[in-house]
Amino acid sequence: MSSEFVRGLTCRLCGKRYPKEALNFCTEDFGPLEVEYDYEAIGRSLRRETLERRPRTMWRYRELLPIDGEPTVGLQVGGTPLVKANRLAEALGVRELYIKNDAVNYPSLSFKDRVVAVALSKAVELGFDTVGCASTGNLAGSVAANAAAAGLEAYVLIPDNLEQGKVLGATIYGAKVVAISGNYDHVNRLCSQIAFRFGWGFVNVNLRPFYAEGSKSMGFEIAEDLGWRAPDHIVVPMAGGSLIGKIHKAFKELEGLGWIDPVCTRMFGAQATGCNPITNAVKTDAKRIKPVRDPRTIAKSLAIGDPADGFFASKLMKETGGWGEDVDDEAIIDAMKLLAETEGIWAETAGGVTLAVTRTLIEQGKIDRDGSTVVCITGNGLKTQEAVIDRIARPPVIRPTLAEFESLIGASPAEAELAPAGA
Amino acid sequence: MSSEFVRGLTCRLCGKRYPKEALNFCTEDFGPLEVEYDYEAIGRSLRRETLERRPRTMWRYRELLPIDGEPTVGLQVGGTPLVKANRLAEALGVRELYIKNDAVNYPSLSFKDRVVAVALSKAVELGFDTVGCASTGNLAGSVAANAAAAGLEAYVLIPDNLEQGKVLGATIYGAKVVAISGNYDHVNRLCSQIAFRFGWGFVNVNLRPFYAEGSKSMGFEIAEDLGWRAPDHIVVPMAGGSLIGKIHKAFKELEGLGWIDPVCTRMFGAQATGCNPITNAVKTDAKRIKPVRDPRTIAKSLAIGDPADGFFASKLMKETGGWGEDVDDEAIIDAMKLLAETEGIWAETAGGVTLAVTRTLIEQGKIDRDGSTVVCITGNGLKTQEAVIDRIARPPVIRPTLAEFESLIGASPAEAELAPAGA
Ligand SMILES: Cc1ncc(COP(=O)(O)O)c(C=O)c1O
Ligand SMILES: Cc1ncc(COP(=O)(O)O)c(C=O)c1O
Ligand SMILES: [Zn+2]
Ligand SMILES: [Zn+2]
Repeated sequence: MSSEFVRGLTCRLCGKRYPKEALNFCTEDFGPLEVEYDYEAIGRSLRRETLERRPRTMWRYRELLPIDGEPTVGLQVGGTPLVKANRLAEALGVRELYIKNDAVNYPSLSFKDRVVAVALSKAVELGFDTVGCASTGNLAGSVAANAAAAGLEAYVLIPDNLEQGKVLGATIYGAKVVAISGNYDHVNRLCSQIAFRFGWGFVNVNLRPFYAEGSKSMGFEIAEDLGWRAPDHIVVPMAGGSLIGKIHKAFKELEGLGWIDPVCTRMFGAQATGCNPITNAVKTDAKRIKPVRDPRTIAKSLAIGDPADGFFASKLMKETGGWGEDVDDEAIIDAMKLLAETEGIWAETAGGVTLAVTRTLIEQGKIDRDGSTVVCITGNGLKTQEAVIDRIARPPVIRPTLAEFESLIGASPAEAELAPAGA
Repeated sequence: MSSEFVRGLTCRLCGKRYPKEALNFCTEDFGPLEVEYDYEAIGRSLRRETLERRPRTMWRYRELLPIDGEPTVGLQVGGTPLVKANRLAEALGVRELYIKNDAVNYPSLSFKDRVVAVALSKAVELGFDTVGCASTGNLAGSVAANAAAAGLEAYVLIPDNLEQGKVLGATIYGAKVVAISGNYDHVNRLCSQIAFRFGWGFVNVNLRPFYAEGSKSMGFEIAEDLGWRAPDHIVVPMAGGSLIGKIHKAFKELEGLGWIDPVCTRMFGAQATGCNPITNAVKTDAKRIKPVRDPRTIAKSLAIGDPADGFFASKLMKETGGWGEDVDDEAIIDAMKLLAETEGIWAETAGGVTLAVTRTLIEQGKIDRDGSTVVCITGNGLKTQEAVIDRIARPPVIRPTLAEFESLIGASPAEAELAPAGA
């Protein structure tokens, strides 16, 4: 039971307090609401050793997640590998590099399963039987899959230009998927209206304060798997700008509980140049986020032109000594290939963004080659095949004879050598 | 160190013993070779409680896997969820149903990562620096990914009709992928020649005895997650017919160690009707496997016409009181949808085969509705999108207005209802 640990919601702008209900903005100033915990009570009742004996899912951190009873949706989410990436480290010329690999998160192969597990568990607690989301693709699949498993009715709204894997990866679960002619910001605005009018639980609209907390679990797991420490640098892909803030919040919560040393992690945010409202704000030291009206990038999952948490994300990067950087489609694809070829991890375009930005930041000297760095891979490459299909050579076709094989590789056994298929 | 636990290889036909080398058949009678362990020594040195404290990967069972030193490839493989499938159980009318979900196995989203982790760790021990495989798709991706991560050169041979996700899911890692005009049996024959001529380590050719043992880890995990017991029934997809035998071997090994009660599990094998050499042998009570010359099914990953372990698989099903059944493409697709809609799990076509066969066996009364049943899901739906893309309605497209949304769902808030997208 974690009910006693959640105090309520608080406005991030004016600090006004609200009860724990389906509400996502302050009625005074439209500021976003944040879940508030009683950390003293959590500290008294939970020890690190207790938690370490629990199953390796995100719910081992349940006291730090905003549901009142036991979770009912997404019980198996989280616990993804933190991979020591030695071959990639060598390619990038850094000493200590890790990949947090949510491309294999359960069940829908992106970090969104974390936020959805919390949001839908909360939706059940609050009595919703119809749920929904506005999505750039990954959230669609996660809401559809988790709602199906929980027996909830789901409405999933997406822009009409998404990849086949993302669309099929939502419709297959029987969710009611609706494509909107327009970009994500159009979808999002419509969802606000629908949630309000129909009284449904939209995970990233009226359930957003609870939903967003789920991302903290990625930070908790990283710190635990590093042997209870925060890394020197972490690079996080940004769309709405929520994940990066929640990972930092996770580190700070562990610090507050006395479970890790004081956190000096520099937070780096990654976007595609074709949709870079947050990194642009960092780089131009702007006071406000200037929305991108017409996002154009192969990293469709990150294509949010008017990011809800962009302001707080840019502030965080600057305050922690981090930075925001963006990269073009070419660099994204190169980075996807590099990750696959060095570490055997096939990330979606968003992962290409994150790694390409990491590479740039290392070259710029903003990431210290001697420090520890975590790269957050948040979605799976099978979902964005369109982005690379024309960039990877198709396999040669031969008849099934040793002679044809030998002539293909142009070699007798002793001198066997073949150009890589990707060349 | 598990070196002391592996005694060598033994012919399954004549019992002749061989040292632990890259060899896959008996030189006397061409019988397949099986790894032999010193179970007494294992029992003396390993306790269940020790193992339970190890990380949740397949390597927690390392004493029962055939490598001599520490594993060096696929350190994060395994530990996939065993899901209690209550909604699916209700739909099928059974009491106790579980899904073993290797669709989220690390890193390449199929159970093949288990066999590849062992085979490539062994390949490194034996000094190979070039490895390869003959694959129906999943093995291709797994060898390519794990070889990339380990810095091994990989040759991956596949039939030339595979799904895009399977082909891209191998080439992306920089492996040397070669398509063969022909079916899997042609590919396999060529690979035997190549492995022999070039002296490379082909995981399912000359490394096959070690490789196949990796599948046992699926059985170990199932038994452990059931609270150290074997289920009453288990349904396993079959291609070469190896996995089903290894799951049973895993249960028997746990029984032999005294860790679980005597095993009475009935073993059920699943194939597609378009390529059913093994289930056909079971159903016709044939003494030999009659190869299928021209496999035709959407379950391409199971399309092996001349299965290496088909004989032993059919024998096992009969001896355990199980059965073999096959299903057509229509039933496969229906089952894929059912699994997605009830449990939020999107399996590849092979998973549709397994669930459709499960359903048939329940209807036939061969699976007891009151017993416990485990359904093995072995690969991910994102890899076989072609199979369902024309069978799932595409989402309707509307403009971003509440009016269009309401007219689409044909309802004001009170009566909101929309036909499921998959209908
Ligand atoms: C793959 C992937 N990575 C990262 C993000 C960014 O998350 P956030 O919106 O919290 O910034 C998203 C959001 O959709 C995503 O799909
Ligand atoms: C998804 C999937 N399931 C099951 C199998 C069957 O394994 P086996 O060849 O051991 O019978 C395969 C083999 O390729 C596969 O790809
Ligand atoms: Zn306020
Ligand atoms: Zn023999």
